[in-house]
Amino acid sequence: MIAKRTDLASEAHQLWREAAGETTKLAGVRAETVNENGFAVETVSILDEAGEAALGKPKGTYISIDIAPLMSREEGAFARAAELLSRRLQKLLAINDGETVLVCGLGNSAITPDNIGPDAVKNVLATRHLVERMPEDFAAFRPVAVVEAGVLGTTGVESAEIVRAVAEKVKPAAIIAIDALAARRMARICRTLQLSDTGIVPGSGVGNARSELSEKTLGVPVIAIGVPTVVDAATLAADLMEQAGVGESEPADLARFGGEMVVTPREIDTQVAQCARLIAYGINMALHNITADDVTMLIN
Amino acid sequence: MIAKRTDLASEAHQLWREAAGETTKLAGVRAETVNENGFAVETVSILDEAGEAALGKPKGTYISIDIAPLMSREEGAFARAAELLSRRLQKLLAINDGETVLVCGLGNSAITPDNIGPDAVKNVLATRHLVERMPEDFAAFRPVAVVEAGVLGTTGVESAEIVRAVAEKVKPAAIIAIDALAARRMARICRTLQLSDTGIVPGSGVGNARSELSEKTLGVPVIAIGVPTVVDAATLAADLMEQAGVGESEPADLARFGGEMVVTPREIDTQVAQCARLIAYGINMALHNITADDVTMLIN
Amino acid sequence: MIAKRTDLASEAHQLWREAAGETTKLAGVRAETVNENGFAVETVSILDEAGEAALGKPKGTYISIDIAPLMSREEGAFARAAELLSRRLQKLLAINDGETVLVCGLGNSAITPDNIGPDAVKNVLATRHLVERMPEDFAAFRPVAVVEAGVLGTTGVESAEIVRAVAEKVKPAAIIAIDALAARRMARICRTLQLSDTGIVPGSGVGNARSELSEKTLGVPVIAIGVPTVVDAATLAADLMEQAGVGESEPADLARFGGEMVVTPREIDTQVAQCARLIAYGINMALHNITADDVTMLIN
Amino acid sequence: MIAKRTDLASEAHQLWREAAGETTKLAGVRAETVNENGFAVETVSILDEAGEAALGKPKGTYISIDIAPLMSREEGAFARAAELLSRRLQKLLAINDGETVLVCGLGNSAITPDNIGPDAVKNVLATRHLVERMPEDFAAFRPVAVVEAGVLGTTGVESAEIVRAVAEKVKPAAIIAIDALAARRMARICRTLQLSDTGIVPGSGVGNARSELSEKTLGVPVIAIGVPTVVDAATLAADLMEQAGVGESEPADLARFGGEMVVTPREIDTQVAQCARLIAYGINMALHNITADDVTMLIN
Repeated sequence: MIAKRTDLASEAHQLWREAAGETTKLAGVRAETVNENGFAVETVSILDEAGEAALGKPKGTYISIDIAPLMSREEGAFARAAELLSRRLQKLLAINDGETVLVCGLGNSAITPDNIGPDAVKNVLATRHLVERMPEDFAAFRPVAVVEAGVLGTTGVESAEIVRAVAEKVKPAAIIAIDALAARRMARICRTLQLSDTGIVPGSGVGNARSELSEKTLGVPVIAIGVPTVVDAATLAADLMEQAGVGESEPADLARFGGEMVVTPREIDTQVAQCARLIAYGINMALHNITADDVTMLIN
Repeated sequence: MIAKRTDLASEAHQLWREAAGETTKLAGVRAETVNENGFAVETVSILDEAGEAALGKPKGTYISIDIAPLMSREEGAFARAAELLSRRLQKLLAINDGETVLVCGLGNSAITPDNIGPDAVKNVLATRHLVERMPEDFAAFRPVAVVEAGVLGTTGVESAEIVRAVAEKVKPAAIIAIDALAARRMARICRTLQLSDTGIVPGSGVGNARSELSEKTLGVPVIAIGVPTVVDAATLAADLMEQAGVGESEPADLARFGGEMVVTPREIDTQVAQCARLIAYGINMALHNITADDVTMLIN
Repeated sequence: MIAKRTDLASEAHQLWREAAGETTKLAGVRAETVNENGFAVETVSILDEAGEAALGKPKGTYISIDIAPLMSREEGAFARAAELLSRRLQKLLAINDGETVLVCGLGNSAITPDNIGPDAVKNVLATRHLVERMPEDFAAFRPVAVVEAGVLGTTGVESAEIVRAVAEKVKPAAIIAIDALAARRMARICRTLQLSDTGIVPGSGVGNARSELSEKTLGVPVIAIGVPTVVDAATLAADLMEQAGVGESEPADLARFGGEMVVTPREIDTQVAQCARLIAYGINMALHNITADDVTMLIN
Repeated sequence: MIAKRTDLASEAHQLWREAAGETTKLAGVRAETVNENGFAVETVSILDEAGEAALGKPKGTYISIDIAPLMSREEGAFARAAELLSRRLQKLLAINDGETVLVCGLGNSAITPDNIGPDAVKNVLATRHLVERMPEDFAAFRPVAVVEAGVLGTTGVESAEIVRAVAEKVKPAAIIAIDALAARRMARICRTLQLSDTGIVPGSGVGNARSELSEKTLGVPVIAIGVPTVVDAATLAADLMEQAGVGESEPADLARFGGEMVVTPREIDTQVAQCARLIAYGINMALHNITADDVTMLIN
């Protein structure tokens, strides 16, 4: 059988409802959708172990923003999305002025759909050294440290180990981890931005503590920000077969490419760059209480 | 109905046989496979209009090299593949020493799977100016001009128009055009290199003369070199449905992404770079009668 | 003797005055400086052959904008500079609505200080195909074609030949050519943007018609936009020797590196990117009569 | 007065001799040059505090390889240089089979002349996770971890702090640190590769322990590998003035650009890439006892 995975709580919830019937009530999960700054924002709260089991994700709050208007270049969409992300991020972070934040870019910068994290942190303002050395000049800024954690295959070290090592030096009050995600449905690719207070648990609940980035393993709150950039080709195929009522048998051509082939937008390079820029703006605005125009002036 | 397209003559032939039954004889087409330098090399010759109609491609010779051993990093595979490509290219070119060749990289360098042509020409040696100005020092070299033709969306000019414009100045005896291709089956992606003497006819036979790069439109033989880097996601889905016996009805999720979503290897960045390097080596070796080691010394 | 070259008319004028004494009147040249949008804008008009001989540049208008405020990230400087460049460019272009413009990026994209032209054209909107095919939807836009002309060393074809070839197809009413320039003084590097209506004449008046991009060789007005990104190291050294009154004898260490070593800002990568972005914005705003915000929405 | 700095012990030694006269004996320093694999290899050993004071560098062994033949593309030069670097590196490392090594790329990847370290580590094989998880399959390999330490300005954390943090997790028997260096003379730029067993002490002896990467601060031997990629423009100017006998007064144009302008090869992008590739090959060959051909197969 092919593993069918989504990193998005809102999609997991949607798939659950599709399977169970729209009227069924899912115990341990609360979901609501509002419109904010012109974007649909869905909050899925997993409240207890029943909710964890149903959606296959740990307890916590998952906010998903439908960024389709941004991708279709609606006028003003970027500034509105950045402002919305910034506001929601501040609420999740719940830290005091002056407390240090560590921002981590996860993923392999040499693989385009995996480059969201590394690309985003290029534009996150590092201010920790400035606040430390010139406290008066930088009184308006929070100390922020930035690390690109690399991937096991090119560093030989789990990215969670790198983050933990740096966190022990920097002693942040909170960590923000940015990563590319996987979705189940093509409609989600580069169209949903997810924010959560649960950290990043690759393989959801599989319990590989070495690779988990969470409050449990790092000792401080970990806010995860991600955008799905691919659907696994095998997942897509299995879903299609299921929709067609053909059952679970795996098409021959797919069996050979499990995990190796992905479905992704033709314009993935541009779309990853846009998502990374949005995330960087949202983070900079949230951490330093500044406007999008301030960010433009500071990073370009 | 979803258009199901392959740019590979060998795959078109294979699909025809799968549909018609292996024992059926296809009129107007001759195919043979040999092993050369450790690679399977299949030559499909389309001989007449019956062959053109059956395979949906113009008359001519199509050579496809199975480069899977290269991708799985078999020892020595790169040098053997470059030497094979070089020899086959020389045979197709059939030009005299000292005659000028124009090498064109097609495709959008900002879209990874489309970057084969632009990436390859970065390593093709341009010698036309050297041979012209220092004929004695460069007596061993053929005059070669290189152009990256861009794409309509970013230049506002058909790439064929750019190539024709440059060809009118350079007056080559032959043109080599490098482009990313589309395949029907995932097994082909970054695993088949196709060489043909028919030029490049995007949309096969649709007759958009403005975008056709061929002897008919450019006045000199056009050798095309390409590697498929994607399968259209809609094509994949339609094929799966067909295999499952569900017929042609289009899955809802796909209808919205026709042409926009592609299936591609997770490691497409690396694989495109490797294919582009192979093509550049093969071209340099063929045009100047030099070894892979000579190329390494000249381009690095 | 070391050749001491500047591509900037305003600098050539300044050097002339330094040598001749500030009170001397230079025949055949008129210069004036105004403040516009918060930038010093100097116009040097070379009126006749006497002026040509004195400054070593062809007759015409040379506008130089002091972009130092942009580089020191003064608030709002980017938008003010883009608007200023756009207005001055429109005045020099003097073409009618609906007439086609060809924009050319010159220089070697693999050499950072030479990458101004190639980097700028990445963000110039190509609209020729859109206006042609969907005239009603794009009625507000001028047809613009964009070409990256490459360099002789990597294409084997003079960039002027490429531009001429494309111009013969596109038949523009005017050409804009973007290139990196050389200055004599470090203070000019990435601090002066020059606009001129004389085209680009590499080697000023040396008369290499093959490499000249001008109305004389291309048949339509050629507006040149450039920013100096390097000072030749030998030029710097010779100037220093002269200032120190040591005369023209060439320091031993320099003799070996003539033309090979350049003086450039440590942060040249960022500064080239900023200049290229400014030029792209100015061109887009001028050609389509749009605002900086429109450009942001269209290119990002 | 302008600080005139070189990171190269062989150059410091040469400058000392030029000042003191060739026949003078320098106490506390031993130097010898041999020819190896076709390259001049100079070893400068600083033996005591007198040597430290004279050359402004800490005690230890500094090996400089004249890589000019590589840059002028002499046939076979790359393979010979990699083999030489590998052999010398093994001698300096003096560790046992199976012991872990941490390889660090220092410098800012967004500034071309500073990109030697980050570019080199892209091609250093990370094997620590493989040796740990599949010890039998990777018995022939040493555990190697790789980290790109970033720079203070973009991370907010001293690169030495990052390296120390990772070293505490990885517990290597030795660290290799790769960095771009500064030279005094243009003839050295991208022409000398320096290996030393003293670690990297930016600002030589200034005693900024936070930024020092050495056995003293990290607890294990630190081998430094570097190539000078720039000469400070102010240093060049001061040297020229001195050579011309004009003394130490600083030219006006320079005073404004101290530290901001550098002298660098026009082709710095290519030359940095070549040096980085050489360093990666040398390290891979030394750490795993493999050949250049093995490395080619493993990293491409």
